[in-house]
Amino acid sequence: MNSSRPPFAGWIRSSNTITQQFLSIGGKPDIVSLAGGLPAAELYPVGAIRDATERALRRWGSSVLEYGPVEGLYALRETIAARTSAESGGKFLAANVMLMTGAMQGLDLVGKTLVDPGDLILAQVPTYLGALDAWRPRQPRYEKFDWNCERPGFDAALAQAKFAYVVPNYSNPTGALVPQPQRLALLDKVRASGTWLLEDDPYHSIHFDGDPGLDILESDARQFKGVYDGPVIYLGTLSKSIVPGLRVGWAIAAAGMIEKLALAKQSSDLSSSLFTQAIALELLESGFDLEHSRSINERYRERRDTLCSEAAARLGDWFEWEIPPGGMFVWMRARDPRIDTNELYKVALEEKVAFVPGSVFDPDGKDHSAMRVNFTRSSPEVIAEGVRRLEKAVKRYLHR
Amino acid sequence: MNSSRPPFAGWIRSSNTITQQFLSIGGKPDIVSLAGGLPAAELYPVGAIRDATERALRRWGSSVLEYGPVEGLYALRETIAARTSAESGGKFLAANVMLMTGAMQGLDLVGKTLVDPGDLILAQVPTYLGALDAWRPRQPRYEKFDWNCERPGFDAALAQAKFAYVVPNYSNPTGALVPQPQRLALLDKVRASGTWLLEDDPYHSIHFDGDPGLDILESDARQFKGVYDGPVIYLGTLSKSIVPGLRVGWAIAAAGMIEKLALAKQSSDLSSSLFTQAIALELLESGFDLEHSRSINERYRERRDTLCSEAAARLGDWFEWEIPPGGMFVWMRARDPRIDTNELYKVALEEKVAFVPGSVFDPDGKDHSAMRVNFTRSSPEVIAEGVRRLEKAVKRYLHR
Repeated sequence: MNSSRPPFAGWIRSSNTITQQFLSIGGKPDIVSLAGGLPAAELYPVGAIRDATERALRRWGSSVLEYGPVEGLYALRETIAARTSAESGGKFLAANVMLMTGAMQGLDLVGKTLVDPGDLILAQVPTYLGALDAWRPRQPRYEKFDWNCERPGFDAALAQAKFAYVVPNYSNPTGALVPQPQRLALLDKVRASGTWLLEDDPYHSIHFDGDPGLDILESDARQFKGVYDGPVIYLGTLSKSIVPGLRVGWAIAAAGMIEKLALAKQSSDLSSSLFTQAIALELLESGFDLEHSRSINERYRERRDTLCSEAAARLGDWFEWEIPPGGMFVWMRARDPRIDTNELYKVALEEKVAFVPGSVFDPDGKDHSAMRVNFTRSSPEVIAEGVRRLEKAVKRYLHR
Repeated sequence: MNSSRPPFAGWIRSSNTITQQFLSIGGKPDIVSLAGGLPAAELYPVGAIRDATERALRRWGSSVLEYGPVEGLYALRETIAARTSAESGGKFLAANVMLMTGAMQGLDLVGKTLVDPGDLILAQVPTYLGALDAWRPRQPRYEKFDWNCERPGFDAALAQAKFAYVVPNYSNPTGALVPQPQRLALLDKVRASGTWLLEDDPYHSIHFDGDPGLDILESDARQFKGVYDGPVIYLGTLSKSIVPGLRVGWAIAAAGMIEKLALAKQSSDLSSSLFTQAIALELLESGFDLEHSRSINERYRERRDTLCSEAAARLGDWFEWEIPPGGMFVWMRARDPRIDTNELYKVALEEKVAFVPGSVFDPDGKDHSAMRVNFTRSSPEVIAEGVRRLEKAVKRYLHR
């Protein structure tokens, strides 16, 4: 490329390509990838989607082949609002819901809507690297949040922050389920400070030991007499409960916030596909997504158990972890201080197994002591083979 | 909404909601909307899309229900590269092509990739308001470009600019087709300066008096011995030639630029829908889009002719215009100095007809002398009724 071209925007120069690398590793047939955050493709309901498409086109005809309203298909917004009302006991209307290209776009839009360069984001650590990617073009500062609301300086940080970012359900990368008292403590602080709370909930539907309980949004909604108007911006998605390829996600928030997010969305891509939203509507109205989730969770439980038992047998001397009650990942922390997971990663790739080094979930990139291991994407047999390769990689790494 | 919330990002406070207003006006049944830039919904090929969906799911199965590679479905990128190679005589590979959520997302991504606050964009005026929306979050400065490359100061502006933005084919809002010598003059200047040239081409397929001739990208590609590596970033879309609701658009550029755009796309929404891209692939491979374009252009020509002849009979005393050889709009400039189209707009809405006031296509918002009138969305009968209402509105406006 011509070197006399104008420079790229500043954030591009501080950017990482690691997500792209992982996505492309996922496609190489000889690598066992325990890296990505992908559902099991063989469980995708191709037939149900074909039928839903047929029904959607019969029901809506050319109207779902139009540009959307910026906020998305009204009937789907209503359906999501009604479900959330029923689950929470609060009151949500279509005006509280905006549809978007996966929950990922919600991260981008919240950043666009709230963040100017130098603004503060209070972010749960370790945190989703896609969120860091999404906000990098807005050039924020970060303060780390570990769910301890009582630590000195927390109130001051919250008061300064544009928003706090949390993933209470089966967080990426740790798989942890945040207990209700901690959620409510944070909600109280957020209410007192007036700041926004971004609750990212992609793993809501993937649980192995019962429902995760009330989302923070839902707890907050119960406080309102009328339509929801609180500080929580909630992000949901069908990427994990049905398929990612429809690219249907949503934000639920105060109507005034939805208006601003719509302004940001309009300037991003005018609207997401009404066509895939109409397909999603068929699947949600019939309750297909709930039924499908129950059946895939059975399979995912088996895979989690395989990963944890194989790892206990082969990696337990070097790593420790909690068994996650939901989500897609086991977060393995090195108990052996010689292990640097950024370095181990290179050896693992040579052994043809991939994970995600913990450093990419740290805004400062400094945590080299952990790795994220996925259990949803691969069959139990492949997971077991992956753990065997990891064991080999660790041994080689330690005897370099 | 709680007034103690943190402030929104700076650009939100300087934002306009006019596109949202227009999109919502389009939905009101008693308004004749000549405002939007929408194709004719009754011409959408619902059956062909249903068939293409069926074929795509048979062909690809669950693999198009996955998250995409950031750059989109490889086979569709290849198809677009091959078509562009064949049409231009240049050489394009899949690495030169990235798929996205409409060409609109390309505007957002180019802004994200190149623009820091205060950077200069050289933009054709009057220009597409969606482009101004897309770049507002990056807070650029603008210098206006009127296709006169010989004016004093032009070379200096080009040297400073991150990119020049043009719509050579049937520009929105003017419908003008920029002659080849002017395109080539700009290309020469851009080559000499080393800056980027953003060629936005949504109306490529809509023409009534023959093909528009070589795109600037194509002229540039002919100069290269090998794979395209020049300064043009070209944006294309299926929104006008097939339907908007698939939300399939693309950028074609040097592979090095595509890489950076992919980084920006990754941080925006991970990927667009592979599912709708696979449907688009079926429609492009079979040449359906070309055949369909020929048939809708016949209808659009009739609508353009109706608008121009009705307007000549009813609005000619107050406005003047060129008959556009393609695209979707007639750009009517007031010849009567008493007419302020921002003010006329309000009276027109009372008369239940909508157009777009020229001011929204001016980065400074100062041009109040023109209006954009759409002829693709409505039947000839509705267009004629719209012009009658416009005539009434102008008369009432002038006799206030």
